[in-house]
Amino acid sequence: MAVSYTEATNAGTEFHLADHNLSNTDTSANTLPFSTVKLPHLIDYLHDLQAHPNPLEHNQFYHPTDGFYITESDVILRHIVQDLSSPLHSAAYHRAGPRNRVFFDPSQTRAAIVTCGGLCPGMNTVIRELVVALWDLYGVRQIFGIKSGYRGFYSMEPVELNPKLVHNWHKSGGTALETSRGGFDLQKIVDAIQDRGFNQVYIIGGDGTMRGAVNIFDEICRRKLKISVGGIPKTVDNDVGIIDRSFGFQTAVETALQAISAANVEAESAVNGIGIVKLMGRSTGHIALHATLSSRDVDCCLIPETDFYLEGKGGLFEFLEQQLKDTGHAVLVVAEGAGQNLIPRTDAQKEEKDESGNPVFLDVGGWLKSELKKWWEREHPDELLTVKYIDPTYMIRAVPANATDSLYCTLVAHSAIHGVMAGYTGFVSGPINDSFAYIPLEEVAQAKNGVDVKDHKWAWVRSITNQPDFARK
Amino acid sequence: MAVSYTEATNAGTEFHLADHNLSNTDTSANTLPFSTVKLPHLIDYLHDLQAHPNPLEHNQFYHPTDGFYITESDVILRHIVQDLSSPLHSAAYHRAGPRNRVFFDPSQTRAAIVTCGGLCPGMNTVIRELVVALWDLYGVRQIFGIKSGYRGFYSMEPVELNPKLVHNWHKSGGTALETSRGGFDLQKIVDAIQDRGFNQVYIIGGDGTMRGAVNIFDEICRRKLKISVGGIPKTVDNDVGIIDRSFGFQTAVETALQAISAANVEAESAVNGIGIVKLMGRSTGHIALHATLSSRDVDCCLIPETDFYLEGKGGLFEFLEQQLKDTGHAVLVVAEGAGQNLIPRTDAQKEEKDESGNPVFLDVGGWLKSELKKWWEREHPDELLTVKYIDPTYMIRAVPANATDSLYCTLVAHSAIHGVMAGYTGFVSGPINDSFAYIPLEEVAQAKNGVDVKDHKWAWVRSITNQPDFARK
Amino acid sequence: MAVSYTEATNAGTEFHLADHNLSNTDTSANTLPFSTVKLPHLIDYLHDLQAHPNPLEHNQFYHPTDGFYITESDVILRHIVQDLSSPLHSAAYHRAGPRNRVFFDPSQTRAAIVTCGGLCPGMNTVIRELVVALWDLYGVRQIFGIKSGYRGFYSMEPVELNPKLVHNWHKSGGTALETSRGGFDLQKIVDAIQDRGFNQVYIIGGDGTMRGAVNIFDEICRRKLKISVGGIPKTVDNDVGIIDRSFGFQTAVETALQAISAANVEAESAVNGIGIVKLMGRSTGHIALHATLSSRDVDCCLIPETDFYLEGKGGLFEFLEQQLKDTGHAVLVVAEGAGQNLIPRTDAQKEEKDESGNPVFLDVGGWLKSELKKWWEREHPDELLTVKYIDPTYMIRAVPANATDSLYCTLVAHSAIHGVMAGYTGFVSGPINDSFAYIPLEEVAQAKNGVDVKDHKWAWVRSITNQPDFARK
Amino acid sequence: MAVSYTEATNAGTEFHLADHNLSNTDTSANTLPFSTVKLPHLIDYLHDLQAHPNPLEHNQFYHPTDGFYITESDVILRHIVQDLSSPLHSAAYHRAGPRNRVFFDPSQTRAAIVTCGGLCPGMNTVIRELVVALWDLYGVRQIFGIKSGYRGFYSMEPVELNPKLVHNWHKSGGTALETSRGGFDLQKIVDAIQDRGFNQVYIIGGDGTMRGAVNIFDEICRRKLKISVGGIPKTVDNDVGIIDRSFGFQTAVETALQAISAANVEAESAVNGIGIVKLMGRSTGHIALHATLSSRDVDCCLIPETDFYLEGKGGLFEFLEQQLKDTGHAVLVVAEGAGQNLIPRTDAQKEEKDESGNPVFLDVGGWLKSELKKWWEREHPDELLTVKYIDPTYMIRAVPANATDSLYCTLVAHSAIHGVMAGYTGFVSGPINDSFAYIPLEEVAQAKNGVDVKDHKWAWVRSITNQPDFARK
Repeated sequence: MAVSYTEATNAGTEFHLADHNLSNTDTSANTLPFSTVKLPHLIDYLHDLQAHPNPLEHNQFYHPTDGFYITESDVILRHIVQDLSSPLHSAAYHRAGPRNRVFFDPSQTRAAIVTCGGLCPGMNTVIRELVVALWDLYGVRQIFGIKSGYRGFYSMEPVELNPKLVHNWHKSGGTALETSRGGFDLQKIVDAIQDRGFNQVYIIGGDGTMRGAVNIFDEICRRKLKISVGGIPKTVDNDVGIIDRSFGFQTAVETALQAISAANVEAESAVNGIGIVKLMGRSTGHIALHATLSSRDVDCCLIPETDFYLEGKGGLFEFLEQQLKDTGHAVLVVAEGAGQNLIPRTDAQKEEKDESGNPVFLDVGGWLKSELKKWWEREHPDELLTVKYIDPTYMIRAVPANATDSLYCTLVAHSAIHGVMAGYTGFVSGPINDSFAYIPLEEVAQAKNGVDVKDHKWAWVRSITNQPDFARK
Repeated sequence: MAVSYTEATNAGTEFHLADHNLSNTDTSANTLPFSTVKLPHLIDYLHDLQAHPNPLEHNQFYHPTDGFYITESDVILRHIVQDLSSPLHSAAYHRAGPRNRVFFDPSQTRAAIVTCGGLCPGMNTVIRELVVALWDLYGVRQIFGIKSGYRGFYSMEPVELNPKLVHNWHKSGGTALETSRGGFDLQKIVDAIQDRGFNQVYIIGGDGTMRGAVNIFDEICRRKLKISVGGIPKTVDNDVGIIDRSFGFQTAVETALQAISAANVEAESAVNGIGIVKLMGRSTGHIALHATLSSRDVDCCLIPETDFYLEGKGGLFEFLEQQLKDTGHAVLVVAEGAGQNLIPRTDAQKEEKDESGNPVFLDVGGWLKSELKKWWEREHPDELLTVKYIDPTYMIRAVPANATDSLYCTLVAHSAIHGVMAGYTGFVSGPINDSFAYIPLEEVAQAKNGVDVKDHKWAWVRSITNQPDFARK
Repeated sequence: MAVSYTEATNAGTEFHLADHNLSNTDTSANTLPFSTVKLPHLIDYLHDLQAHPNPLEHNQFYHPTDGFYITESDVILRHIVQDLSSPLHSAAYHRAGPRNRVFFDPSQTRAAIVTCGGLCPGMNTVIRELVVALWDLYGVRQIFGIKSGYRGFYSMEPVELNPKLVHNWHKSGGTALETSRGGFDLQKIVDAIQDRGFNQVYIIGGDGTMRGAVNIFDEICRRKLKISVGGIPKTVDNDVGIIDRSFGFQTAVETALQAISAANVEAESAVNGIGIVKLMGRSTGHIALHATLSSRDVDCCLIPETDFYLEGKGGLFEFLEQQLKDTGHAVLVVAEGAGQNLIPRTDAQKEEKDESGNPVFLDVGGWLKSELKKWWEREHPDELLTVKYIDPTYMIRAVPANATDSLYCTLVAHSAIHGVMAGYTGFVSGPINDSFAYIPLEEVAQAKNGVDVKDHKWAWVRSITNQPDFARK
Repeated sequence: MAVSYTEATNAGTEFHLADHNLSNTDTSANTLPFSTVKLPHLIDYLHDLQAHPNPLEHNQFYHPTDGFYITESDVILRHIVQDLSSPLHSAAYHRAGPRNRVFFDPSQTRAAIVTCGGLCPGMNTVIRELVVALWDLYGVRQIFGIKSGYRGFYSMEPVELNPKLVHNWHKSGGTALETSRGGFDLQKIVDAIQDRGFNQVYIIGGDGTMRGAVNIFDEICRRKLKISVGGIPKTVDNDVGIIDRSFGFQTAVETALQAISAANVEAESAVNGIGIVKLMGRSTGHIALHATLSSRDVDCCLIPETDFYLEGKGGLFEFLEQQLKDTGHAVLVVAEGAGQNLIPRTDAQKEEKDESGNPVFLDVGGWLKSELKKWWEREHPDELLTVKYIDPTYMIRAVPANATDSLYCTLVAHSAIHGVMAGYTGFVSGPINDSFAYIPLEEVAQAKNGVDVKDHKWAWVRSITNQPDFARK
């Protein structure tokens, strides 16, 4: 069975904090096809920490019943699609939820919340729920927002937050705390956390942010501070691994459909009309894939995980030519990161990096539009062609969360708080097969979530669009 | 391992069709903590049936790759939240998706589609996807819609369907095939199916409909007809068991939020304003629960699975009084089936039954409104009170599916077709832990999906609303 | 004309007609077919009042150009549809907009804003714009909200308002100031206005509210106080006369379409399905009429301005029978006040009055539903009939204003401020033939705006729905 | 003036002036300050044309009452904002609506409908309403859609239309008839109209299209054909003159607000965030202006009708610097045609023309973004700046019409039909001061509708945004 913090305490010296094998598993003791993933805990390095009864015990209106508190033996299995012809094995993660003991005295708790990276629907909802739940459930009264991302820890005054102030934040997209990329300076950040007396740090951000959070967590361990770090994965692209999806993703897909619908209208209303929609997704095509499966309008979906080509047999032009002949119009959905290897790059473009240090992505939609026009003029100089290109990126990521994502935001925020109050640290909360669990920060920071083009979700796309597989022969 | 149809054929005589133990499991052969649920198959009673290669093999544009076809050893685990301190056990269901062999020749296939019961967002999308996928993927050209529910089999002409006709159906709520309750006449229905030469029957409906479908399937088995019956669970209340949720549910929750938001505006804009929203859910409170978790406006959520009371310590009035004192307003969400035991019933009402033969539900929202007014007049005769009551039922169930549900509709329809083409029968397709699987009709017809008020989802609600637990002491 | 300002004018030897006579109703001097409607002004009874240059002169960024200030000779014609075969005559109203002189020193200005009566989309937007424009344009710093309608003047503390506080109010429906009906106590209200030192009072409400505002204005005149009263008509029913329409009306129609669409889906998805939608409109059918013209789904629209009957030749049942025969379904839209004379009333109901003292309206939608069912059972006992009834009232009036209404809210609020600052009083601002004008409060309080069933708007409805004219012969 | 009707009138002894002289432009006989604008009529050049009673007489369900038919003396005044200090004069237009006599026998009527130019919300609604009203009201059974704009008359087969086919067209944006620019060949078009036997031609398009329609009308007059030409102005930019606005405009503004809201969220969520939204409007800034007045988020609105400059005192940079200092963010709305004189043009760009022969517009939004970044790097090299640029054009013009525009589409289509049936030709139908009227095609083809920056609508913008007036000193 998994290592609970009490056993860890008992085990004491064997606990190798230095090499961070927190995600190690221990399945030797039984024959179960699971291994429970260990979760870092303050007591791993602060062995004398005192636990208190959970303040939820004293709520005026409701009374925790049997089963209300989650125990260490409650786990969530990760791999549920099994091929029975192979040996089974699955990781199991600790289930999220309130524990019967906590390691923070609410009156001594000082929480900081920060948002980093790009916008994503639901950020304000997560912040709001962190504030309201810390306040209402656990009675925490010192809650602060860090402005402008990581750099805000050391360069700006924190903003004091309370339920009244954040009451309507969820109605607006974006983040009322503002966000930025970069600005990560480990020592300055941890110094600031320490100086300001924060003992709970909630970090909302993507994979880059989570890698920073791992460093902050490591440094806090090194300094043996009683500060818990809870992460909440934010990635509109859905490229963070292990978790099912991140908040805002369903809203992004919903909003993307508006752009696809517009592209379809433009295409259908023209003679030989082609609509192109570029959707977010630098390394993964999840939004493009889900939008394609949700819409009835997409004829071809291009994602970073599969190559494609334009000319020749089995190529995009051949397919589109057939499509225009059959129905008079076509709609292409293309993920931001698709086809980057096909677009000619100037020397300057080869050098350029974005604010997070990633290579600059070229505009695949604009390139496709121009290639399509050149091709048509070459092949059908006397026929009309209309290509309309829509890039709805900023209109997608700036909307408030829809109902599905709002519920997610509530659960992910409450989960994070329950975990942090219970003394866990260096973890994120997130859904695994639709149940919220705790996952070590380090695992999440390293896991990638690409579209598995050998899997059925991608097969669905191909069966719906009837698009070529670009397996040139 | 699970019984594949070939083994079943080999096993021959042991196959006890009479007692329908199709949901029996077989785990004796190994030590896995799973038992794979057996799925009925045409070959169970038509032992000489010939299989053909899947027509997907011959698609012009794409080529099934390794792993494209699902095998009998691909299963989905049902129970993924585990308490490691107890012995583990989970049912496992066959994964949905194309099989490499099919038991229908598309040119001989004659499919019928019927919708029964109340409206639910996405019905038209499911119909459309059944038609388009049968046509485009498998080359089926004889596809018919049965009008007006079960009675339409024997009392109305079927409507011939094709992709062009259904092209835009998903843009409208409701069902273009029309629907009705009742009208189930087993012999007439199976006679009509036989007379019209249908060999695939797709039935979209709720638990009552699924019980009818089981009977149809049994009768077809009895007559040893080569007719596959595929079910698609439709229940806006989400009261069908085993599957995660049914299509339209997320859309219903999303739309319910509009009503809650309106109730909140009404409440906030009045002196001592109370807004009541009644949401669908006769036996279960899923919509109420999810809407409460998605909204930030609900102060109290009442569902059929828990009792409540109005007067006295720990009662609803006490809670609302406090709420009005603290914030000046309150919002109640109440599921249709909540509090039915509290509402006084006239003798006539005690007798009355609805079209499906269920006891008539009394209007809990109207009753609450009137009780609240009486209470206030009694307790605070000189103070204003405004109670606004919203019943958005028909505005919720009549909208088209949102993106999340649209994707579900696509997958559930394609899954059903792949299963039926592969010769399975007497099953439904539906998601289990987010992956589509096949489940015996009979299991689904009997399973209930209530809100587990001992589980954490309900605890979330209580932690968000801070509402009383009505555990009178 | 009844209002006291005429007497004031008569009395006024000190009144410098040279400056202000343009607002006299005087067309004798010329042959114009217009008569300009006189507007009350503080100087009517405070003859020595000093004017100042408009503070807009000193704006940092822009500079009033020629034509920026509206003069007394700028008017808006009311009657623009003319029958040239009759003698022409039209009232003309003073155009709204900034005047080059004002009668309030911003530093001495103390403004109060109150909302009365039922909810209407845009109330919060109007409040917000009053606050922001008083602050930003004229430099007023003392702005107060009166809570809970008229009774709030004398029974509650005013809330101090500023642009930061109201910044996002327009995103929520309803009124953040809360509202109520009744509570009108003239002396207490004017005493309170005087005691608290308010010298500008902005009153947002319907015809009842405007009749109250006339009394307040009269009493202020009687007391010769330097207090301007500006009204902003609010009526989601659009039953206030003279003005084109009030804010929120377009939003209400837009939202009503959702209910009609749902009713249509319910009707189309059933065998012999009838959908009924009850829309707001006690004395007038504007919302029903506009929604019918905007939708493509309505088969019959019933409004208070025309009688109808159920049975017999040319009756509703005959029409619906034909409709069901032709298309299988029908959608009825019925205004709240339609058919009140047809519904049987119990003695208790004959006595009952609502909070504003009006006779209680019976539920015409529920009555129609029940009559339809009885009729069908009588005439077609063996055929199915489904009647679904939707009352979307609270979901319509609680939404925020759409773009068209938001623009209206901006202009009506700015118009009111410009008028009040210029010393006008006892007036409302509102659009006449799409241009904002000033209208005496008294005129507006008395004018009714019914649907003219002899006019073409109603003829449009009849040509679209093809419904009977209920002109029994 | 090109049109033959004046000559026809002069020539016309057979012309029964008693019936038709009301449409003369003749005010000499009285002292009215109006002149009624004459409308072309088939009888102007086909003097023996027979009139019939209006088929509306024979409707089953309703009976035209007094005042149902519009007479020639019903007019709409155009200028209703008057300066009483100047002499008054206004044009008056014939009111739209059914006439008691028609000049087409429905059984002999053959109508053609064509859409030209770019997309605009509501096109499909107008087409649908034309088809349904011709069919239902007047009993016309030969109704055809011309595909692909003007070129479709002579290069494609017309599509036969009927109410069942077009039933749901209004639910989709764009035009189901497809559209294109160019392809105008007068002789080929009129030959095709004649060859195919069309005698009613409904042309939906913008100012360019209307200029083409004038030529078609002239040529038809020259050939003395009994073919009526009715125009329906379509311009999402609202740049067509005389009429209040064209259909789709309110929808465009509503949809533009989504982009502005997104830009505001992006700006507010960043450190020194600037959001830029480019809105449609090549020669006029109506959409930008209305969106600015409807939103609460715009800090500066730039339109083609006013110049602006970037650097120096009173320039855009100075204003934005102040804005960022005050609030930390800013939102710019810029019409497509604004600042074209400021953007450096390459020689190639100086030559380039679009499909309609207009000079190519450069991307003012992209240029502003790049200039802003250069300026900031120069002035504040160490401070963050985030500029997000949104171009929502295709997402705006491809949506279906909202309620307000849908009503407009109904009225404009019915108006056009009533006019054409009554024998008018060479006219458009459109709203003048909110009442539908008939206007000679030629007038509309020549009239421009710019934003009058001396008028108050523009002053409203400036008072709301507080933006500079760019009146450099």
